[in-house]
Amino acid sequence: MASEPKLKIKLQIMCGDEIAMGPGKADLLDAIEQEGSISAAGRALGMSYRRAWLLVDAMNRCWQEPLVETMPGGQGARVTALGQEVLHDYRTLQKIAARSGRGQHWDALANALLAEPLEKQRG
Amino acid sequence: MASEPKLKIKLQIMCGDEIAMGPGKADLLDAIEQEGSISAAGRALGMSYRRAWLLVDAMNRCWQEPLVETMPGGQGARVTALGQEVLHDYRTLQKIAARSGRGQHWDALANALLAEPLEKQRG
Repeated sequence: MASEPKLKIKLQIMCGDEIAMGPGKADLLDAIEQEGSISAAGRALGMSYRRAWLLVDAMNRCWQEPLVETMPGGQGARVTALGQEVLHDYRTLQKIAARSGRGQHWDALANALLAEPLEKQRG
Repeated sequence: MASEPKLKIKLQIMCGDEIAMGPGKADLLDAIEQEGSISAAGRALGMSYRRAWLLVDAMNRCWQEPLVETMPGGQGARVTALGQEVLHDYRTLQKIAARSGRGQHWDALANALLAEPLEKQRG
């Protein structure tokens, strides 16, 4: 299962020194859409509430409008219209980059890779 | 300086669960080429010798031949012919992926980004 050579492509969109969007934040937006709250989304991803909240706070500080909106009185959270657009464009960029990586140079690399790593040396 | 919206693309080539090549390992190969030893390369990148050695060991276990060869008697290290090929192809893939990311979807995202993040809320 893990034995196929695999190219992972991670996109990070920077706003100054802050990561405005990346793989973890995109997954969190998906989970908030699905779960309807930041805490439930964090739980679904095995992430502490504090961590999920920090990621949401960072996203909300990097774009022209917040990507996540919390409801008054602890009534959960939802992804804003801008959040949905950003998420969609980010996923599209991911797909474009992934497709672009599967050319001639990837084949050469994949051929030189072992199916599984050799055992670790004793250091 | 840090205020321009920026797309960072990281490529990781997986061999099973091991990262066979990624941004840190590629930089380390460059540094070994330049410095002629693993310890000097690690120093040049602000990395401990142990960390540099672990990265080299991982690379050497993932490909059909080692990417780094150490000279007998502590006479330094060098990047093998396969190591140079893998490094070259990896850098090419990076460039292809980076170019592919600069289309219509990137413009929409860049337009919605702030120049700098807003200040952190007190949590």
